[in-house]
Amino acid sequence: MTSIAQKNHVKIEFKYEEAFKHIKNEVNRALSTSPTIIREYTRHLGKTTGKFMRASSLLVCAQNDEDLIAQNAIILASAIEVLHLATLIHDDVIDNADIRRGVVTLQKKYGNRTAVICGDYLLSVALKMVASVSEREEYLDRKLPDFIGRVCLGELNQQINSGNYDLSVFQYLKIIAGKTACMFEAAFYAGISLVEKDEVVIKKYARIGRYVGMIFQLTDDCMDFETSESVAKKPVQSDYEKNVVTLPLIHTFKTFENFKVKAKVHRLSRTEINIMVKKAGGLLYTRNLAKKYYKKALDLLQKVETSEDKKEKIKSIIDKAYRIF
Amino acid sequence: MTSIAQKNHVKIEFKYEEAFKHIKNEVNRALSTSPTIIREYTRHLGKTTGKFMRASSLLVCAQNDEDLIAQNAIILASAIEVLHLATLIHDDVIDNADIRRGVVTLQKKYGNRTAVICGDYLLSVALKMVASVSEREEYLDRKLPDFIGRVCLGELNQQINSGNYDLSVFQYLKIIAGKTACMFEAAFYAGISLVEKDEVVIKKYARIGRYVGMIFQLTDDCMDFETSESVAKKPVQSDYEKNVVTLPLIHTFKTFENFKVKAKVHRLSRTEINIMVKKAGGLLYTRNLAKKYYKKALDLLQKVETSEDKKEKIKSIIDKAYRIF
Repeated sequence: MTSIAQKNHVKIEFKYEEAFKHIKNEVNRALSTSPTIIREYTRHLGKTTGKFMRASSLLVCAQNDEDLIAQNAIILASAIEVLHLATLIHDDVIDNADIRRGVVTLQKKYGNRTAVICGDYLLSVALKMVASVSEREEYLDRKLPDFIGRVCLGELNQQINSGNYDLSVFQYLKIIAGKTACMFEAAFYAGISLVEKDEVVIKKYARIGRYVGMIFQLTDDCMDFETSESVAKKPVQSDYEKNVVTLPLIHTFKTFENFKVKAKVHRLSRTEINIMVKKAGGLLYTRNLAKKYYKKALDLLQKVETSEDKKEKIKSIIDKAYRIF
Repeated sequence: MTSIAQKNHVKIEFKYEEAFKHIKNEVNRALSTSPTIIREYTRHLGKTTGKFMRASSLLVCAQNDEDLIAQNAIILASAIEVLHLATLIHDDVIDNADIRRGVVTLQKKYGNRTAVICGDYLLSVALKMVASVSEREEYLDRKLPDFIGRVCLGELNQQINSGNYDLSVFQYLKIIAGKTACMFEAAFYAGISLVEKDEVVIKKYARIGRYVGMIFQLTDDCMDFETSESVAKKPVQSDYEKNVVTLPLIHTFKTFENFKVKAKVHRLSRTEINIMVKKAGGLLYTRNLAKKYYKKALDLLQKVETSEDKKEKIKSIIDKAYRIF
């Protein structure tokens, strides 16, 4: 199979659906044709690719006035998906996670060391993809490392607050703005940058991307409590078991101070937590906050001048983050 | 302190010594002025910066016909030093090392998780530095991720062969060509690329860089056996204790098959190993190989047309790798 990157010099444009298929191929190709020594690991990762939400965000934003998407957008979208995969691998090392998207993690299967290196390697693959985009703007180069740095700081912030039951709502939102929302912001930013030069417009799209990320993470936090393993393809360990304190629990601790005191003294069971979170309305509180971001995103989308098709597709991404399919 | 990068639009050139000082400042600034949340860790790393051999390699190669160095070279050289630091952090996670350059490692002091994130963060800092170089050539962008990828593959190869006493000389050289030599190759490549357009010449410099890396690692391998902790500032654990099989031991295993069999059955003591390596002439063998690369490097240097000053400085880097000061 020839790589899209190799055909880069010919100017071809695609409809969204076709472009999306190409991304899947590109990512698959990157994972399945890596050097022999690392192929076993990257192929294993091929089983755990997700819904490509970051990639499709980038694609949609890169739609031009004729609702067509350039090859460069496909390469950048593939790159951001590979980059996201790299962060997930290091994430699993940090969380000591066993399962990701229903598949045993790299670090569980092959050990921490291999996982650290594979994450680094995939990062280099993503960088190579970005570098192969010939017509990318200079500011894209400067901005992307910045996004990566912010994801790291978000991760670090979460790590520092591991098991911190006194975490405030504000602190929590700052963490997820880094670790999750930043990558969506990057996707929206990179996508729109390919077809738009006006910094004010670009910033609007980036902000919608950030909101999408916030909605996505807050909804994810709720699902961690709500859904059973098989449905959510979530890790066997819940966030709490990984010492990650999320908003439903923060709200519950705030509502029932005694419960927090208890949590500090002894390990809580999943049932215990679920009962108290329900009692405190922790999920409703979190969903409400997600709803606020959802409205903000839709409001901002209204203010953007673009085709109806593009608007609809962006709305569908916002809906997906909010889990309205 | 103003960053060199910020003054980037003014064209200023420096003598080598001055440029070298600027690098130290740049790296220090990057480590000491990072965001609050990560500053404690990056400042800790500031204690462990080394001799900046990769940075000085880049600088020397970037000397122009008047033996002056442009600002861009300083930024790239700082970036490669920060990148190198990032790889060392992940290295220490992989090796579970306690001490690096006489200072307790990040992973020992703050844990694996923090170290993984800090490594990623520093990588993003290095990328940001590279992206800030305005006049860098397109092929530099495409090539640098490639070097990072090759370093990862070298690391992975070493990791896969952890404790493999049947490792061949050829396999071993392949490992160090990746994990060590590649970064020197990248330094030489980036440096010369700033002042030279002829691909043939650039490749010659890159090859000298690769030889420098090979010499550096082979000499390092010998020092791991020879020098006491305090002198070498080496980790408390020897390579063998970290399950890293290096050339002196490979040669010894090849010479004394029985010793290899013994090693497979039970853990050897440092004294036991030292005696057998000496008996087999493992260090002499390794030094001889380093000498071959040393000669190759000098031969190739002779074939390069450039100023006497630049040649002398490159020779001095080759000497340093060979530990002739």
